[in-house]
Amino acid sequence: MSGGILEALRVVEVSAFIAAPVGGMTLAQLGAEVIRIDPIGGNIDYRRWPLAPSGSSIYWASLNRGKRSVALALNTPEGQEIARALIARPDSPDQTGGILLTNLPAAGWMSHEALSRHRADLIMLRLTGNHDGSGAVDYTVNCASGFPIATGRDAAPVNHVLPAWDIAAGLYLTTGLLAAERARRKDGQGREVTLALSDVMLASVGNLGYLADVQVNGTVRPPMGNDLYGALGRDFMTRDGRSVMIVAISNRQWRAIGKATGLTEKFAMIGPMMEVDLDTEGGRFQARGAIFALLEHWCAGRSLAEIAAAFAGSGVLWGPYQDFGQLLAEDPRCSEANPMFGRIDQPGIGNILAPAGPLGFTGQARLPPRPAPMLGQDTDEVLAEMLGLSAAAIGKLHDAGTVAGPASFETIQAR
Amino acid sequence: MSGGILEALRVVEVSAFIAAPVGGMTLAQLGAEVIRIDPIGGNIDYRRWPLAPSGSSIYWASLNRGKRSVALALNTPEGQEIARALIARPDSPDQTGGILLTNLPAAGWMSHEALSRHRADLIMLRLTGNHDGSGAVDYTVNCASGFPIATGRDAAPVNHVLPAWDIAAGLYLTTGLLAAERARRKDGQGREVTLALSDVMLASVGNLGYLADVQVNGTVRPPMGNDLYGALGRDFMTRDGRSVMIVAISNRQWRAIGKATGLTEKFAMIGPMMEVDLDTEGGRFQARGAIFALLEHWCAGRSLAEIAAAFAGSGVLWGPYQDFGQLLAEDPRCSEANPMFGRIDQPGIGNILAPAGPLGFTGQARLPPRPAPMLGQDTDEVLAEMLGLSAAAIGKLHDAGTVAGPASFETIQAR
Repeated sequence: MSGGILEALRVVEVSAFIAAPVGGMTLAQLGAEVIRIDPIGGNIDYRRWPLAPSGSSIYWASLNRGKRSVALALNTPEGQEIARALIARPDSPDQTGGILLTNLPAAGWMSHEALSRHRADLIMLRLTGNHDGSGAVDYTVNCASGFPIATGRDAAPVNHVLPAWDIAAGLYLTTGLLAAERARRKDGQGREVTLALSDVMLASVGNLGYLADVQVNGTVRPPMGNDLYGALGRDFMTRDGRSVMIVAISNRQWRAIGKATGLTEKFAMIGPMMEVDLDTEGGRFQARGAIFALLEHWCAGRSLAEIAAAFAGSGVLWGPYQDFGQLLAEDPRCSEANPMFGRIDQPGIGNILAPAGPLGFTGQARLPPRPAPMLGQDTDEVLAEMLGLSAAAIGKLHDAGTVAGPASFETIQAR
Repeated sequence: MSGGILEALRVVEVSAFIAAPVGGMTLAQLGAEVIRIDPIGGNIDYRRWPLAPSGSSIYWASLNRGKRSVALALNTPEGQEIARALIARPDSPDQTGGILLTNLPAAGWMSHEALSRHRADLIMLRLTGNHDGSGAVDYTVNCASGFPIATGRDAAPVNHVLPAWDIAAGLYLTTGLLAAERARRKDGQGREVTLALSDVMLASVGNLGYLADVQVNGTVRPPMGNDLYGALGRDFMTRDGRSVMIVAISNRQWRAIGKATGLTEKFAMIGPMMEVDLDTEGGRFQARGAIFALLEHWCAGRSLAEIAAAFAGSGVLWGPYQDFGQLLAEDPRCSEANPMFGRIDQPGIGNILAPAGPLGFTGQARLPPRPAPMLGQDTDEVLAEMLGLSAAAIGKLHDAGTVAGPASFETIQAR
């Protein structure tokens, strides 16, 4: 028993890449038992870069922590039957299941209709690319979103590196899953819950006001580099070649910048000069060029350490830019000083610092980070526990090539 | 009764800006009753740009659709008492409440400890900037994440325009809320659920393998423009000055590109030339320069319409780049042809196309998009319904300035 808040909830995940795996991992980090079923040899994401020197995928291992792994010959009726039995297994007194999470094409044996014949109250979460079922991935959704054209200094598209739509989709899936499970406890009904990755994008573009802005004002917001739209903020270079982001949304934050930099009096000259009210967000946005000129000069004369010292305890909203290495090396939030982090022994990768889930619940210890399984690591145990198969029966399934046990990446390569 | 899957769940939101409002709106889109409480005159986000010609905030209206709005003098003991009564109201036979969602500093009367004295099983979701309670916003979290330095063509930081951390945080909050409410139905316990915006970022950087990559390989991934890392993909200019994203992750997608463009034979020369296996993701990534050279030439000779025609039904994973205006004007997914969209009459803004929530549930009609309330629109109704106050009692609260009714932005400006 895990002790997490979703203890006694069981979810089967048949997935690849980011969105559904993030959803499953989020549930596992809350204490649910998440069983990821993969084809023998791994799914299409199993060798995704970056790789560790051993050849193991750092990508796969990072997106599947805390899950159990079962490897089945999903291209055979026998393998499909075992998958179906795991998905549709009746609840036990101490565990609620009957939930499938997938972002793979869910046709044939894995359709909601087919699986529902084996468990009428099945909840199935299904992520597709587009709402009509056609394919799309984060990259092809993002290009359509408007954000790459609004990013950077000119109209040339700049793709985000963070797969933001996949992450949001993963968390919409966990939300939808818990909502459907809540409803099932009231009405006993199973449900298929559908989500399209491009709808996640479209909903977010709408939620942030971009669609209404075009409709009402007829304007498309131009790219403006790192300037914060409608308020005050930008990146500034420091004397030692680093960059900092400085932001003011509230008047309090705005005044804090003046006080901490000693620029209050000079800032006060800008209002009359630019004919705006600097005590409003819009006014500061309109006069940002003049404000930035003063802040550029101030930052360029100081090192990152000096700026950090000047801003400490000042109420200024700011932060240093860091690359991934600096994040790990320099940011105390990215270390065991932050209770979200711990060390794990990740097979094929080594002993590393890794995050647990970010949600904390009072009266409930946060589950520490757990490693990802090796592919097929839990096959035998899950078949015995959940389907009551004997060691002899499991042995026969191995001999027939219907299931596979733990395999390191090297073993699979050598086959 | 809304008919959504979270019907009969009630959440009080005391919030500003993006993260908690996205969380509350997501719940409202699933049928929960979400009551947003604001100070009279609006919270700090009430005038946020972009604005409609009327002065109404398009930003606020887009992030608070489908909620009810109550305006209270939150800086007075009387206003706080009403807020507390709404938050801590006992459940009725047909509605479960006792849930507060906030991303504001939750001290004093709004602390979990103080509110729990009025309802012992209170669930309170609290988003902070950092795990130690210090402040941070999407911009100051993002700069630290490593992504701005990995974005674009060189090491100069490029901020994302999409507030991705806020969106993810909003959806972690809905996940945590439903998990805590699930546990409460089992054990009757209230809980404070905490989430730090920077932990959302740190967890995601870890989940995507960046932290492990630095630890294991000692390398920091350099910015590589719009090239897809570890697979094949990039933007290409068309003859008519548009751009398209073309991606291949699977071998099937890779072969589809060759077939649709007629470049299969030329692609076949690249493997021996670059000494890589083009039937692997890594091989295509290593040889991407040569592959891109052929695709650049192919795209530059064709219009966007010609490329769309060549790729239709081909299995090629691609998409056009669109700005926000083109998204609305040209993309059929962003129209009423997509069942997620509908038209709403938004006070102060007009009749506009707006998205509903992206999750669909079989056997449950998707709730259509609903407008955001005017500030204080539901004050009187909520006080009467939830607290049983008479019209006379509510009138006295208005006279005393403790509550306020519906106010358009113009009314508030004129005060």
